[in-house]
Amino acid sequence: MLTLSSDFGSPYPAAMKGAILQRTDTRLVDVAHDFPRQDVRAAAFWLREVLPYFPPAVHLVVVDPGVGTDRAALAVRAGDHALVGPDNGVLRPVARELAGEAEVEAFEITVEDPDSATFHGRDVFAPAAARVHEAGVGAFHERAEFTPTDDVVDRTFPEATVADDAATGEVLVVDGFGNAVTNVPGDVLVDAFGGTVTVDGESAPTRRYYAAVDAGEQLVTVGSHGNVELAVNRGRGDEAFGVDVGDTVTIGTD
Amino acid sequence: MLTLSSDFGSPYPAAMKGAILQRTDTRLVDVAHDFPRQDVRAAAFWLREVLPYFPPAVHLVVVDPGVGTDRAALAVRAGDHALVGPDNGVLRPVARELAGEAEVEAFEITVEDPDSATFHGRDVFAPAAARVHEAGVGAFHERAEFTPTDDVVDRTFPEATVADDAATGEVLVVDGFGNAVTNVPGDVLVDAFGGTVTVDGESAPTRRYYAAVDAGEQLVTVGSHGNVELAVNRGRGDEAFGVDVGDTVTIGTD
Amino acid sequence: MLTLSSDFGSPYPAAMKGAILQRTDTRLVDVAHDFPRQDVRAAAFWLREVLPYFPPAVHLVVVDPGVGTDRAALAVRAGDHALVGPDNGVLRPVARELAGEAEVEAFEITVEDPDSATFHGRDVFAPAAARVHEAGVGAFHERAEFTPTDDVVDRTFPEATVADDAATGEVLVVDGFGNAVTNVPGDVLVDAFGGTVTVDGESAPTRRYYAAVDAGEQLVTVGSHGNVELAVNRGRGDEAFGVDVGDTVTIGTD
Repeated sequence: MLTLSSDFGSPYPAAMKGAILQRTDTRLVDVAHDFPRQDVRAAAFWLREVLPYFPPAVHLVVVDPGVGTDRAALAVRAGDHALVGPDNGVLRPVARELAGEAEVEAFEITVEDPDSATFHGRDVFAPAAARVHEAGVGAFHERAEFTPTDDVVDRTFPEATVADDAATGEVLVVDGFGNAVTNVPGDVLVDAFGGTVTVDGESAPTRRYYAAVDAGEQLVTVGSHGNVELAVNRGRGDEAFGVDVGDTVTIGTD
Repeated sequence: MLTLSSDFGSPYPAAMKGAILQRTDTRLVDVAHDFPRQDVRAAAFWLREVLPYFPPAVHLVVVDPGVGTDRAALAVRAGDHALVGPDNGVLRPVARELAGEAEVEAFEITVEDPDSATFHGRDVFAPAAARVHEAGVGAFHERAEFTPTDDVVDRTFPEATVADDAATGEVLVVDGFGNAVTNVPGDVLVDAFGGTVTVDGESAPTRRYYAAVDAGEQLVTVGSHGNVELAVNRGRGDEAFGVDVGDTVTIGTD
Repeated sequence: MLTLSSDFGSPYPAAMKGAILQRTDTRLVDVAHDFPRQDVRAAAFWLREVLPYFPPAVHLVVVDPGVGTDRAALAVRAGDHALVGPDNGVLRPVARELAGEAEVEAFEITVEDPDSATFHGRDVFAPAAARVHEAGVGAFHERAEFTPTDDVVDRTFPEATVADDAATGEVLVVDGFGNAVTNVPGDVLVDAFGGTVTVDGESAPTRRYYAAVDAGEQLVTVGSHGNVELAVNRGRGDEAFGVDVGDTVTIGTD
């Protein structure tokens, strides 16, 4: 199985699929091709949320604002999974989530001169992902095209500050429903469900699911990723709470 | 074969696919993940139009504004097809269309405590659809996790009023081209093709296909679903006719 | 393998997939369903860029503003590939690219009366593509439903005028990143990389890849299709250069 993720929109992902299907007939699964453009952090976040639900697979990830520069092409083993993509940190958080740091190994992929300097997804990463799939994760150490490396870009997410009566964190992403996903761990709400918390000083009800408030009403909940989420039942939480990606939010729980 | 439909946008459907592929290696086919958000009626309409073109399959449908509430999780047998989704009526119109009322049976799915209260698509419905696929529609009566039930939410579409010289109906959906699809049966146009009808009193040509009028011109036609459609050749019918979902329209055919 | 391309958006492509899967269980690959609506030239451009990366396959293409008129339904053999779609020229540029003019043969498909006059993608082309897939490209000459024809619509792209010190061309498409893709061959930039050219008289740096200029800065590059592209690193080239599809641009290289 080989999954594909990118910020390419359409139709560029199809060229990657063609390049893969020239080399393997494995199952292809699209994860997303509409990650926010050239936003490595958002892609890293979503991959970490989604890929752990897959069985072992090769995951091709191309969110690559540095295409054409000398940033390396990486293959990463994460337990029984493999990840292929640019060395900009997009692969590390999900690799750790899939297998734990001790089971993560990175390899620089030796690539011949690609056809284009602007579409390495098609000309470098897709063929490499197909080769990784055919070789198997066990072959990384046996094939000359893969060179072990420890010198890779990492990316971590900011941590929320959690105190007894408040937690201060950041909006990491806003999903398509308008839910503002923070980095505040959902645990902080556990005693507050059914009551209220404050969000930047304003009171808001805390509920386990959206429909626990009337349509159009704000709520603070824990999303499927386990983080605190600012939401509106059948509406957009980002607009109602007036927050956007990168904004600091303080959740008061006293 | 297992089809997937939702209003999730991206990338949440990928988490459902991973959860399914942990449990079955059957073919997955995306129907749509951009149904109007939390609009059960629109999803019910489109599913009824599209799924009957498929061979027998398990159809996973997650348009679920009541996620987290005590609405049931359903598996529905419709002839040789199976449908899995929330008990909010989204499954019934297509089930009737697939197999006829007499061949429709509903079962409540017994689910363990799901990981999240906000993403039952991933934690409840996708695993259930995979299990239904592996068990086969014939196994509904044999497995303890499926409990027959007649107490399910239904959903019907409003019927148009058809008289000799006019039909009054409602705009059910607007498709991506801007075609306003009504509930008025296409039959009312059969004698009018090549001539004109009135739409809310204004005259408009009636044609069998879009390109029978010049680009930018309005027409009244019968869409692929068999209903009267208000359209513009190479343009948007909803804007030209000034209609939106839920609006009443009267087609005069005298 | 059978690929699908259309301007249908969603959920109409799913009805085509169902109609195909009633007739064949081959692999389906979506190329794109968001080609600019009813824009035959844009679809012809993108198909020519993407389909050559695929292994031999049947390619279903439905961008069909003339649906319902008497335009023919075509099956085209292009070497080991087959293309199925309307006779409006959308298939020819990619057919030539896939196999060369000498290896392109066109056949009119004899179709029974379709269910609808507005959705031949579902009722005519998808079933035909499935039959073509099952019969194989070699069977075109053996089956009565395929009639050889030379009387087909062609479509060519305008050619740029290339002189020693300037090239004048046209913006053919704008991709999702905002890159304005011209018909000016990339060769004209080969001596200019690292320096500047003029675009309609205004100076702009010429670079091999986007990140060779600062974020937000304009550049002129060669895209993955081999043509000159007007771009902005991490931004939209179409807006920065003030160009849109169909605009004439002159690239000064002296």
